[in-house]
Amino acid sequence: MKQRLTIIKVGGKIVEEDTSLGRLLDDFAAIDGPKILVHGGGRSATRLAERLGIESRMVNGRRVTDGETLRVVTMVYGGLVNKNIVAGLQARGVNAFGMTGADLDLIRSRRRPVREVDYGFVGDVERVNAEIIALLATRGMVPVLAPLTHDGKGQLLNTNADTIAGEVAKALASAFDVTLVYCFEKRGVLRDEADDASVIPLITRPDFERYVADGTIAGGMIPKLENAFDAIERGVDEVRVTLASAISQPGEGTRIRK
Amino acid sequence: MKQRLTIIKVGGKIVEEDTSLGRLLDDFAAIDGPKILVHGGGRSATRLAERLGIESRMVNGRRVTDGETLRVVTMVYGGLVNKNIVAGLQARGVNAFGMTGADLDLIRSRRRPVREVDYGFVGDVERVNAEIIALLATRGMVPVLAPLTHDGKGQLLNTNADTIAGEVAKALASAFDVTLVYCFEKRGVLRDEADDASVIPLITRPDFERYVADGTIAGGMIPKLENAFDAIERGVDEVRVTLASAISQPGEGTRIRK
Repeated sequence: MKQRLTIIKVGGKIVEEDTSLGRLLDDFAAIDGPKILVHGGGRSATRLAERLGIESRMVNGRRVTDGETLRVVTMVYGGLVNKNIVAGLQARGVNAFGMTGADLDLIRSRRRPVREVDYGFVGDVERVNAEIIALLATRGMVPVLAPLTHDGKGQLLNTNADTIAGEVAKALASAFDVTLVYCFEKRGVLRDEADDASVIPLITRPDFERYVADGTIAGGMIPKLENAFDAIERGVDEVRVTLASAISQPGEGTRIRK
Repeated sequence: MKQRLTIIKVGGKIVEEDTSLGRLLDDFAAIDGPKILVHGGGRSATRLAERLGIESRMVNGRRVTDGETLRVVTMVYGGLVNKNIVAGLQARGVNAFGMTGADLDLIRSRRRPVREVDYGFVGDVERVNAEIIALLATRGMVPVLAPLTHDGKGQLLNTNADTIAGEVAKALASAFDVTLVYCFEKRGVLRDEADDASVIPLITRPDFERYVADGTIAGGMIPKLENAFDAIERGVDEVRVTLASAISQPGEGTRIRK
């Protein structure tokens, strides 16, 4: 039997407000066994960019990353958000260490080719160094991953945190029973955006396609669930979308099934 | 016989300009055996603070670090400077990974008590986790250390990079033959500030005290050399102060002797 490994992806408001971050870190610290935390930080990046007079341009929910914006996300994701999470976990007895894809050559990516949109310094994942991350995670060290990768030629690249969580989960799926939890501000995928109780408990690929077609699932939830289905179809044991406070409650949220 | 380990501290302009950084990384990549890079980033921090309308206040060459300034240095040291160095070293085949003192609980510090000056979120080093850094450095991984530490209770603290280099060198001195090189923009400690050829090749503690008394050594060079003497007196094998381009030339610069 393979060992269980838990990957938690948190984004948005959760890691950027002290109270919700504190609760998340408490819950994350309580998870048994090898674990990995992947974080976003887009709101803080947008706020810093604003203060510096840099325009934040989003296309299809993705940040267009020019040189100045890359500096901002490197500072916010790799520095501010990442190191505060690491210090917070250390205070809770979790031997965390922060990494980007460049550290220990963890995640190589390729700058996204220009088609309709030039996303700038955005990287599509090419390879996850599963061995090194498994080695560290099984020796009581807890990787905290910022959504930055590198091309191996010295260039840092901005890579979506949901994608990083999914790619790391897939890369570790042959060695571990991987549970991947996408946390956000809702209890799960909702049938009715306005009704927090309308959580859909289980979504299969055909359900997903139907929900997208009828508009139940829309916007940023679509790429998130694409990552989730990709992970479950490529050997990840369990994928859930739920509240950050529900990371240790297997019954909560929306479960993704093939 | 103990294994040699090289610790290079670079600060100032070197890591903040692409050309000089590139040259430094080439030279650093060429160093044989276990090695550690410690970097500063003060100029970039001051520049970002300016753009954000945050005043940079220095007392005795040390940055007074209020909450806003701590955010700035966390972004600049832990994110921007650190991750660009890591990506640059990876491109040169060096398996670098960036760390602050919080990562893997590497360096614990205590917030500096308020005496004449309240330095704010500045940490005085209490303990270096020598085992973990030795373990990593002897397995082909190359730590790149940003000048940030933590108090173990969730608080990041700003710690001078010269001090970090010295403390890490001392902590590793019983397990390795440690060479510590402080790099800056001059060829070494100069007899005459205006004459780059006036390098003092060797300084002992009595020399140092004499040079400080007669004003030959002044300003920021005093705490740098205090760190250097502290290191050499606490078992570090070799300490030099020199140009970044001379890190592999043992004859260059100023050598510190007991």
